[in-house]
Amino acid sequence: MSDAASGTYERPDTMLRDDRASTELLGMDVVEMSEDHAIVTMVVRDDMVNGHQIVHGGLVFTVADTAFAMACNSEGSVTVSSGAEITYYAPGRAGDLLTATAQVRSRRGRSVLCDVEVRNAQGIIAEFRGHGKTVTQDRLRAEQTS
Amino acid sequence: MSDAASGTYERPDTMLRDDRASTELLGMDVVEMSEDHAIVTMVVRDDMVNGHQIVHGGLVFTVADTAFAMACNSEGSVTVSSGAEITYYAPGRAGDLLTATAQVRSRRGRSVLCDVEVRNAQGIIAEFRGHGKTVTQDRLRAEQTS
Amino acid sequence: MSDAASGTYERPDTMLRDDRASTELLGMDVVEMSEDHAIVTMVVRDDMVNGHQIVHGGLVFTVADTAFAMACNSEGSVTVSSGAEITYYAPGRAGDLLTATAQVRSRRGRSVLCDVEVRNAQGIIAEFRGHGKTVTQDRLRAEQTS
Amino acid sequence: MSDAASGTYERPDTMLRDDRASTELLGMDVVEMSEDHAIVTMVVRDDMVNGHQIVHGGLVFTVADTAFAMACNSEGSVTVSSGAEITYYAPGRAGDLLTATAQVRSRRGRSVLCDVEVRNAQGIIAEFRGHGKTVTQDRLRAEQTS
Repeated sequence: MSDAASGTYERPDTMLRDDRASTELLGMDVVEMSEDHAIVTMVVRDDMVNGHQIVHGGLVFTVADTAFAMACNSEGSVTVSSGAEITYYAPGRAGDLLTATAQVRSRRGRSVLCDVEVRNAQGIIAEFRGHGKTVTQDRLRAEQTS
Repeated sequence: MSDAASGTYERPDTMLRDDRASTELLGMDVVEMSEDHAIVTMVVRDDMVNGHQIVHGGLVFTVADTAFAMACNSEGSVTVSSGAEITYYAPGRAGDLLTATAQVRSRRGRSVLCDVEVRNAQGIIAEFRGHGKTVTQDRLRAEQTS
Repeated sequence: MSDAASGTYERPDTMLRDDRASTELLGMDVVEMSEDHAIVTMVVRDDMVNGHQIVHGGLVFTVADTAFAMACNSEGSVTVSSGAEITYYAPGRAGDLLTATAQVRSRRGRSVLCDVEVRNAQGIIAEFRGHGKTVTQDRLRAEQTS
Repeated sequence: MSDAASGTYERPDTMLRDDRASTELLGMDVVEMSEDHAIVTMVVRDDMVNGHQIVHGGLVFTVADTAFAMACNSEGSVTVSSGAEITYYAPGRAGDLLTATAQVRSRRGRSVLCDVEVRNAQGIIAEFRGHGKTVTQDRLRAEQTS
């Protein structure tokens, strides 16, 4: 990424920097990230398929979950996931580029609802809905060390 | 299945053999597997945590999803996941041993509902409910090559 | 409704005509209905509250479910609900006018996913996501009489 | 609570007494109620069916939701529903006696997860999973008048 990159591209780097699961393990990229919105991609490798030779449903969920986290978080606060639902429409295969597009649908108090669709080249393969609670980074740090 | 072996332990091996995501990528083990029931474990490695230094929620989902698949499948038929919900109760950490215990709750027609709880040493960290459709292996093969 | 009413208003009448639960029991009105979209309203009566003096969550679900059915159905086919999730954000009270706005989010094969938000005068009180399968009316009739 | 009465049966009466939706509108009965468990029944009346002449899915949800509330609540505290999922397996008809059996599955901190199955004479027609937060009655009263 060039030195001249916009803030839009810098923040994802910061957020993903320590997310070893999304980056190191699964090779995701953050393509877009702005308030309440994010696009994350992942190429399905040979070691991401299950016994039926289709991408493991848990990894489809995981790329959606990362996009959800990117869309919900903003400077000074983080959104902790309290749960999510996923519906599968079609299988993905090794070699597929999966694109997870997340959009916050509603916020009320500390609650956030965010929808993510996951596509491959043929169309939608899954719809994900994530539920989150917004907490300050200070509070999260306190909870994690207690 | 050989006469000399406990079918209970042979079948998981067979099922997991080609599931590279669960084995190669995530290092899961199948501890128990019988009709409508399975226990799968996964040790949280350093490369499985997110930016908050807790295990990525997607990987908690993934170990539950594998246990769900193990519990639902039986000889001659497979259960294809149509969707799932997960609720998170507490975070897991690097070094934790996660144990996902799956139990089919109900079957009606081709539909299967299966609940999975995921625990670490401190207690339940997530509850997962998976929805599946049972198809014959022949039909699945036909669909995947079409 | 006047004789000059557009088709947009005639179809809801036809669909609701025999839906005694939504009309007779719960007094809902269909405000808008077009392909993949519907708005249904319900006034919370005194006999719709639970022991905490707030509208029973099941009835918030029910008005959303009717809006879901209206948005998914079209001429010659009907959508049968296979399941739904609801998230509550705030309570409704007796006297509130609830407005359920349904929008189909995706279709693939026979599967339909449709989101519904329910509002009172203060804002969103619930988000509903419905899952449906499209069947022809002929097939539905055959199933129901078998 | 009087000395002479079975608390098991008196508490449901107390809880349902002001729940006009469940009693007056929908005619439910509480058959069993103990800690973390409840059974609630409802007869499907002619005015509870939708346009397909099957019981409105929202009312199947509602009887499950009432059973969920009965199972989660205990003396001095109440459980407020934060959301729920339902999966439908088969339709119910006018005249059916629906039996909703609720069992708390897990509690952690203030969070409660409770599963409910709904049956008619032919078997399971729906599975419901409710999510709740436990609050003291004093706090709930304060929130509702603020």
